[in-house]
Amino acid sequence: MIIEAVDLFYLSMPEITNEVDGSQDALLVRVSGSGLTGWGECEASPLTSIANFICPKSHGAAHPVSYSVLGQELNSPQDIVRISNEVREKSLTILQTPHTFSGIEIALWDLLGKYLEEPVYKMLGFDKTFSKTPYASQLFGSTPDETYKKAKSSLKTGYRAVKFGWGKFGIDLTEDQKHIEAAREGLGKDCKLMVDVGSVWKDDLNEASSRLDMLEKADVQWLEEPFYTDSFSAYKGLSQSTKVPLAGGEGCHNPLMAKNMIDFCGLGFIQIDSGIIGGIGSAKEVADYAVSRDVQFVNHTFTSHLAFVSSILPYCGYEDFIFCEYPVQLKPLAWDITIEHIQLNDEGKIDIPEKTGLGIEVDVEGIKPYLSMVKIELDGKEFYQTPSL
Amino acid sequence: MIIEAVDLFYLSMPEITNEVDGSQDALLVRVSGSGLTGWGECEASPLTSIANFICPKSHGAAHPVSYSVLGQELNSPQDIVRISNEVREKSLTILQTPHTFSGIEIALWDLLGKYLEEPVYKMLGFDKTFSKTPYASQLFGSTPDETYKKAKSSLKTGYRAVKFGWGKFGIDLTEDQKHIEAAREGLGKDCKLMVDVGSVWKDDLNEASSRLDMLEKADVQWLEEPFYTDSFSAYKGLSQSTKVPLAGGEGCHNPLMAKNMIDFCGLGFIQIDSGIIGGIGSAKEVADYAVSRDVQFVNHTFTSHLAFVSSILPYCGYEDFIFCEYPVQLKPLAWDITIEHIQLNDEGKIDIPEKTGLGIEVDVEGIKPYLSMVKIELDGKEFYQTPSL
Repeated sequence: MIIEAVDLFYLSMPEITNEVDGSQDALLVRVSGSGLTGWGECEASPLTSIANFICPKSHGAAHPVSYSVLGQELNSPQDIVRISNEVREKSLTILQTPHTFSGIEIALWDLLGKYLEEPVYKMLGFDKTFSKTPYASQLFGSTPDETYKKAKSSLKTGYRAVKFGWGKFGIDLTEDQKHIEAAREGLGKDCKLMVDVGSVWKDDLNEASSRLDMLEKADVQWLEEPFYTDSFSAYKGLSQSTKVPLAGGEGCHNPLMAKNMIDFCGLGFIQIDSGIIGGIGSAKEVADYAVSRDVQFVNHTFTSHLAFVSSILPYCGYEDFIFCEYPVQLKPLAWDITIEHIQLNDEGKIDIPEKTGLGIEVDVEGIKPYLSMVKIELDGKEFYQTPSL
Repeated sequence: MIIEAVDLFYLSMPEITNEVDGSQDALLVRVSGSGLTGWGECEASPLTSIANFICPKSHGAAHPVSYSVLGQELNSPQDIVRISNEVREKSLTILQTPHTFSGIEIALWDLLGKYLEEPVYKMLGFDKTFSKTPYASQLFGSTPDETYKKAKSSLKTGYRAVKFGWGKFGIDLTEDQKHIEAAREGLGKDCKLMVDVGSVWKDDLNEASSRLDMLEKADVQWLEEPFYTDSFSAYKGLSQSTKVPLAGGEGCHNPLMAKNMIDFCGLGFIQIDSGIIGGIGSAKEVADYAVSRDVQFVNHTFTSHLAFVSSILPYCGYEDFIFCEYPVQLKPLAWDITIEHIQLNDEGKIDIPEKTGLGIEVDVEGIKPYLSMVKIELDGKEFYQTPSL
């Protein structure tokens, strides 16, 4: 099959707030070949990535991403690897490239799976899949009382693990303590509690260390993103001074970065977003490496169920990687991207879809109200226009 | 002073070839305040970075770069640090951000220097500057004979150090040997020879190791970029098996990445481009760290003399960092960006300009023929247009 078209669609809520909630807009990718279509989603700034996809080349290692994808042969998983390598080489010096390519790569898997009539997990080399324990991923409340109520409500819904993140956490020691205690109180003793601080301490080891006591007392499952992704020395220092496992890696935009974090940061959990790291194949490479290094792989997802499935596929066949991040506060746009949604099974776990391709379908009619039309002119001539959905 | 305007200009040669020659297009930045203007240059894909500069926000950590710069106070170097930190936080999840901000940050130094009537090196805390030994940075010839002639010609021009890079080097062992021998023969015994392979071996330690013998025999000063920037394990492995110093770091897009390379890769030379790493302040942070770790700092530059000055300023006050990369194969566009050009002094060395700001002026009339006009519409409404030069 030939990749005949790659189309990018910028979807957006009517209003975007300053919440750090990645479900407020989306960059969807549709790839077409042999009368079939595959879909994927980038975790990326839509307009920036559209420009990256179609920009005039700057030199031999700065081609637009489209250059290495359009018109290529796609008949096997090896073709996706080859295309990924070519994108990396030909667009190496455009920093945005992995964000842009991630959704395209995911769409290629979906298209290939439909073409070969295989679910993606089988094409990845897994014989079977294992259910994952979802943790309800949500923002801290604006008050400790709201955090408590959110925790209580998640427990009631049947979650066995809950993660609180971002909000104002990490700024004020006393407030932080109240939120952590409220979360643990709301969840009771047995529910797992994860804490995500969204790089709030940058590379400041002392700020992080001063919270270890409260985190240990609340028996948290992990502390996520205490520092910027590249703060290796701070990560290493913190990991050596606590038994609280550290989690991080969502910012990794290629497999080598994630391997470096595994090798040098003392992580307990490596968290990878297929929509950021370069797609499902790149994420699978990290999962394989995590197996060999006795580090737990977990998906990172804060957007649609299309993105969610794309991020659990890379480790769905590894029984020992038990958790998955399950976003529970999606904006309507992110919910409306797919026709079906992945629900908790009777045991409160997540099953991986068995259908061909990604196993989840985009709701083309449902997303139309969110579509933002982009047009770019260069020197007075039309250079790019959003294609029709 | 208030930052009243930040304008991005996409300049391009009429034809862009597949050479890996970054001087074929440029993204220039002009910042204005108090009736003064400052200039900077990004080492970035121009259209991608323009989109990054003005894109609608996606959430609280994905603002356009413009959001954290326009309208800000600028009265001291601390203001530049504050703005840099704000850009990092508010645009954290847009991968392209550091490439886009780099040129803006450089322009802020230029503007501030003109406002305070100080050269940038003094604002960076240096009392005086030290001349640097330039190495002529150029591509390998297409044949060993052409490489020989280029070497010979550089020696004749008065260079004491020459770097050959990219081309077809690194693919064929026998050909590589011929090029290395031709380069050394052309340069004679005393001229320093650097070799830049532009990540050709990705993360393949064996491919690199098989060239060590020829590199040692040719007495090369360093082997540059044997692997992708993130290939830490391969770098470390190679550094432990040779006395040839390794050089790398041009891909670092924040100071933490560069510090990680210094800490974990066994580098002899860290090579930083102010137009990539986030600007002059970020590059200076790496230079300071390199001092403490006994690693040599060198600029990376393959574009205009504006970019060249921006990349030597961060270490111009450190006497022990002796080399600088001096591009000698610039396309006319890159040459035409500045009115003056930095020439070798009588000793064949590079002096740092003493004038206020960056100390080098943009040729506004000279660049007009290269200007590419960008217009972006969203949902039928004009959203962005290249301002007038």
